[in-house]
Amino acid sequence: MSVTAVPGFTAGHATCGIKTSGATDLALVAHADHTPVTAMGVFTSNKMTAAPVLLCKESLAATGGQAAAVILNSGNANAATGQQGLNDARTMAALTAQELGCQPQEVLVCSTGWIGFTLPMDKISTGIPQAAANLTTDGGPAAAEAIMTTDTVPKTVTINGQGFTIGGIAKGAAMLEPNMATMLAVLTTDAQIDAATGTKLLQQAVGTSFNCLTVDGAESTNDTVLLLASGTAGPTDPQEFGDALTEACASLATQMADDAEGSTKTVFLTVTGAANDTEAAKGARDTANCQLVKCSWYGQDPYWGRIAAEMGAAGIAFDSETITISYGGQVVYADGQAQPVDETALTAHMAGRRLNLEVDLGQGNGTARIVTTDLSHAYIDENMRTS
Amino acid sequence: MSVTAVPGFTAGHATCGIKTSGATDLALVAHADHTPVTAMGVFTSNKMTAAPVLLCKESLAATGGQAAAVILNSGNANAATGQQGLNDARTMAALTAQELGCQPQEVLVCSTGWIGFTLPMDKISTGIPQAAANLTTDGGPAAAEAIMTTDTVPKTVTINGQGFTIGGIAKGAAMLEPNMATMLAVLTTDAQIDAATGTKLLQQAVGTSFNCLTVDGAESTNDTVLLLASGTAGPTDPQEFGDALTEACASLATQMADDAEGSTKTVFLTVTGAANDTEAAKGARDTANCQLVKCSWYGQDPYWGRIAAEMGAAGIAFDSETITISYGGQVVYADGQAQPVDETALTAHMAGRRLNLEVDLGQGNGTARIVTTDLSHAYIDENMRTS
Repeated sequence: MSVTAVPGFTAGHATCGIKTSGATDLALVAHADHTPVTAMGVFTSNKMTAAPVLLCKESLAATGGQAAAVILNSGNANAATGQQGLNDARTMAALTAQELGCQPQEVLVCSTGWIGFTLPMDKISTGIPQAAANLTTDGGPAAAEAIMTTDTVPKTVTINGQGFTIGGIAKGAAMLEPNMATMLAVLTTDAQIDAATGTKLLQQAVGTSFNCLTVDGAESTNDTVLLLASGTAGPTDPQEFGDALTEACASLATQMADDAEGSTKTVFLTVTGAANDTEAAKGARDTANCQLVKCSWYGQDPYWGRIAAEMGAAGIAFDSETITISYGGQVVYADGQAQPVDETALTAHMAGRRLNLEVDLGQGNGTARIVTTDLSHAYIDENMRTS
Repeated sequence: MSVTAVPGFTAGHATCGIKTSGATDLALVAHADHTPVTAMGVFTSNKMTAAPVLLCKESLAATGGQAAAVILNSGNANAATGQQGLNDARTMAALTAQELGCQPQEVLVCSTGWIGFTLPMDKISTGIPQAAANLTTDGGPAAAEAIMTTDTVPKTVTINGQGFTIGGIAKGAAMLEPNMATMLAVLTTDAQIDAATGTKLLQQAVGTSFNCLTVDGAESTNDTVLLLASGTAGPTDPQEFGDALTEACASLATQMADDAEGSTKTVFLTVTGAANDTEAAKGARDTANCQLVKCSWYGQDPYWGRIAAEMGAAGIAFDSETITISYGGQVVYADGQAQPVDETALTAHMAGRRLNLEVDLGQGNGTARIVTTDLSHAYIDENMRTS
């Protein structure tokens, strides 16, 4: 049920022709009576910031963290589109506000798709009234489908907390990288949480989920995570809410990895024994983003030589004699040399969809965990041409 | 003629079965009368340092920068092989010294190939006398062939300077990245240059050639550039020698890019207008190593959106309104939006083997230049399995 699993929220969608495929490409998430609720967001740090991200930040600042709805389109990112792009994002908010009877600043805007093309506003203008007209209390899953780009399955989550509910929809298939994964996510909740606390908890949840996911090291221009909190569930324990929010974000992040463009493997990489957490994260991210390592995962090859070489090149404390590398719990390299393995078990692990890779650097107590994917022929096919 | 174009140097090769293909896999470069000459090297900064690199550094330190020969094998990198690997590298030097009648410390050792397997010393022991037996004054090109791994063509260079000659052989096809490209290069010269000056000039030459080449961002465990200088040409102007050395290294680096694993494009990326040279280099390297950007080159797609997004994510001074992006001299993006282009000319440029990509950040006077390649299906094919 996702965003509409939370009492008081509705969702709608439309097919307005931004996608040439004829698939749905417009989604609307709205608070049921179109009155603003507490709203907060976490956004890309890419300086090539897309127009809708600029507008969201501006609106949240102007309202002091309030929003009544989120309008989202897929098929076009409205990024690198200059002043026209910002005007178009404002028009999307204004048209939606007009349909809902709220203020334009109370409508947040998200776009995802190709970078560098102005939005087909004639199509979007037609689609917004359609999406508003079919707002329903069970429209979440269809909204999740309308924001897909190269995703092959919609991504939704519902968490039933202690006296509150969190619902979410998300998209993300490539250009995924910490700070943040290229992705859009809209979360709703009836928890009672103020904007400052909610923002802090959202940042924490994003930090351990979406920001620990990397597909190709490319940071998007449009990454956005929004949270609308109605407060109708009454007083909520921030700790419990934060935990549930983290669980929701982690679920969506794993769904993204499992559906990453062309990927055949989801790899859970854990680094321990680094000099500190920062060095662990650096080693983990460099290894996760290494093309050669990604190719070996695609080939189901437990080639520890590349893992060791990448850690050795990461500029972190490293000793080839103290590093231990394991796949699926089996040590493949330790004490400066390859180790005997149970070939049958190792081959079976490498053939699975999910790989567990553990690297102990033997330097200190620093740890990091990252979720990533392999590099396949299909990834290239999906990314070699804009059209 | 490469390394043997320089009077006083000989080269030999052997097929000893390290490569299962039956191709030549052992090369020897030696000063003609097997007496030591001035020698210097630049090596990988990867902390997962391969045994032959450790040995070269040790020997050059012990001799104060003298060497009589270089023995090289392909097919096995002797990296991540622990103490056994170091013992094997020492044995390679000792066996070669025995054949040549020089000291073991006067023989430098290079290995290239798969990481993590100990050397087949029985095969190498048989090969070294063969390579020594066929040392000739025209053996350079065959030696260049014997150090190939996934290279498809041997890489050689000969520079005729003012009163001196520089010759070189090199290999390098993947795992290429600044500091350094994964590569081996052996250069010879009859210039008279002391070890300290020569080392400085070699570092400068490497800095503007091999270190400005990136194929996949992966830094090797074995990168080595060696220079043997006999001095028989008499006093040499350091400036002239340095220029010729840079020219030799640049030629070998471009040959590596043109023959990079599975690549269909060699891309010359120039960044200007950065806040400073460091930021220009950061933006250039991040963009060159971005999988999404590499895929677009493979697709012959002048997709500036990804270039801009990568520069925006590089953590450097950036403004989407001041960045200008050009392919083949044609501006495709400026003033915050796509620019009209001569489609025919642009398509023709993108279809060529070599692409010129210029990015002006409009921030300051910082510049950088990098040579890189695209990401193809064939790259994945070559790297998805160790065997």
